[in-house]
Amino acid sequence: MEKIKQLQQDFAAFLAQTDFGGNPKELYEPIAYTILQSGKRLRPMLCLLANDMFGGEEQEALWPALALETFHNFTLIHDDIMDKAPMRRGMPTVYQKWNADIAILSGDAMLAKAFQYALQPKKGADLAHLLGKVAIEICEGQQMDLNFETLGNVTIPEYLEMIRLKTAVLLATALQMGATVAGADEADITHLYDFGINLGMSFQLQDDILDLYSDVATFGKKHGGDIAENKKTYLYLKALELASEKDRRRLEYLFTLRMDHDEEEKIEEVQALYDRLHVKEAVEKVMLDYDRRAFAELDAVGLPEEKKAHLRTYAELLSGRKK
Amino acid sequence: MEKIKQLQQDFAAFLAQTDFGGNPKELYEPIAYTILQSGKRLRPMLCLLANDMFGGEEQEALWPALALETFHNFTLIHDDIMDKAPMRRGMPTVYQKWNADIAILSGDAMLAKAFQYALQPKKGADLAHLLGKVAIEICEGQQMDLNFETLGNVTIPEYLEMIRLKTAVLLATALQMGATVAGADEADITHLYDFGINLGMSFQLQDDILDLYSDVATFGKKHGGDIAENKKTYLYLKALELASEKDRRRLEYLFTLRMDHDEEEKIEEVQALYDRLHVKEAVEKVMLDYDRRAFAELDAVGLPEEKKAHLRTYAELLSGRKK
Repeated sequence: MEKIKQLQQDFAAFLAQTDFGGNPKELYEPIAYTILQSGKRLRPMLCLLANDMFGGEEQEALWPALALETFHNFTLIHDDIMDKAPMRRGMPTVYQKWNADIAILSGDAMLAKAFQYALQPKKGADLAHLLGKVAIEICEGQQMDLNFETLGNVTIPEYLEMIRLKTAVLLATALQMGATVAGADEADITHLYDFGINLGMSFQLQDDILDLYSDVATFGKKHGGDIAENKKTYLYLKALELASEKDRRRLEYLFTLRMDHDEEEKIEEVQALYDRLHVKEAVEKVMLDYDRRAFAELDAVGLPEEKKAHLRTYAELLSGRKK
Repeated sequence: MEKIKQLQQDFAAFLAQTDFGGNPKELYEPIAYTILQSGKRLRPMLCLLANDMFGGEEQEALWPALALETFHNFTLIHDDIMDKAPMRRGMPTVYQKWNADIAILSGDAMLAKAFQYALQPKKGADLAHLLGKVAIEICEGQQMDLNFETLGNVTIPEYLEMIRLKTAVLLATALQMGATVAGADEADITHLYDFGINLGMSFQLQDDILDLYSDVATFGKKHGGDIAENKKTYLYLKALELASEKDRRRLEYLFTLRMDHDEEEKIEEVQALYDRLHVKEAVEKVMLDYDRRAFAELDAVGLPEEKKAHLRTYAELLSGRKK
């Protein structure tokens, strides 16, 4: 835990000394506003922990860590425009606080900045290449997500591929970048990457659950927002799979109602239906399965257990294995 | 001219063999749609010509050339959302043909792809670094442009700084990238960069003129579009400078009218006012001054004249010195 706290502090200090200012201020204020909001710093932490595990220099790994956090925040700014999300981390989103044009443009600048940060260390070209790859994958994932809004029948494999691209690959790349900076061998980098993929899948399913089964104070988003927006999450797809013909038709109908309908009532009815079908438990089972696979990949990394301890602890904390 | 045609063909062939496809198709179709439209390929040509001038390998320079064209098209896709431009090169813009979400996302993917292309040659890290720098400058320029829409008093120096950032730096960077790939020395790269800046300023002023003093068939955009959208171009700012108090007030009033007003009538009145004040001639004078400065920088490059001939010819063709 000491190591985790230290890396968190080091990253916070690195962020604090980074200059996010510039002119015109309309371009730069949203960047600082977004990136300096308190966040879990999950991707930087995965990068720093992976680098530390293989004995890499922290000073070098702070750059890809910053690149990852900047990149991640760029995706949030642009996604929030598309999702018309008013709030994020309990604060107004950039497109809401400023406007969509500014949100597009500061996002673009952040994406460019992310590449600049990634290029700083000795292995900069490799890191920038990984960033380019993951950036394109995430665009693919987001486009799939947008397609799902209007698509009649989304399958569970399609949904899983979407969250792999939209969420999991970035966690995997964060680990890969950290290990790359440290000069880890290819086989270990691949295990760590696959650890990240499975962990990411597990986290996203957890997010799907938390969107409904948590409250706004702890999660920072509106309760049942996915249902209100007719998002075809794993919960919804699993419910369709488990439902009787009659329930299925009702659920599909509810997911055609637009925002102007009584939102609370709709969320309540869907939740009652999910509860009756034990959807939450079914999704948790799949989530835990990804979780198990993730840690099997970590086990396979060719390092003594004590080297993996910090990353393991960190991932366990996040996945709720450890409180 | 043979060399210019050959490089144009080589770049066209390189583009044709590049795979812009992928899934989901909603993400990739707009990319191919935009980048495969016929365009001048100005930035790739500047890159290839600069590389050729210093005896660089064409095969290496084709990558930054592709990066520049991809990057440039990304800026068009995003700018068209912000400018609500329905047409570009005589074709519907991406946000118009698909929608704004798709335009945001395919633009993002193109920006990431541009970095991937820039990273391909041996000097990839340097090229990606230059791309990152210019990308941020262009965002600054576009934000200034957006600010000007609502700003009461834009000065001529502010306008010039905006077009430097929004247009000129990318032409300069194209030359810089080509010369960098070829291993030119710093002093020459700087002269070439400054050549690009001045050429870019001249081109943008020419564009400002052409927006009003040309027709849709040859220019591919609506005649007087800048006036219809109340864009404070150099023409407008120069007119304010030259106008009597009465004309100035009238012009400022006309530039507060929104689209729902009779557009044609407004464009005609503004044009008549410009003509009376000889605004076109005044802007042309400034344009030619940038043009002169550009070629003085080219003269200063430490190479025998015959090495500069192709780039000189190409730039002269574009700036209208040579027909």
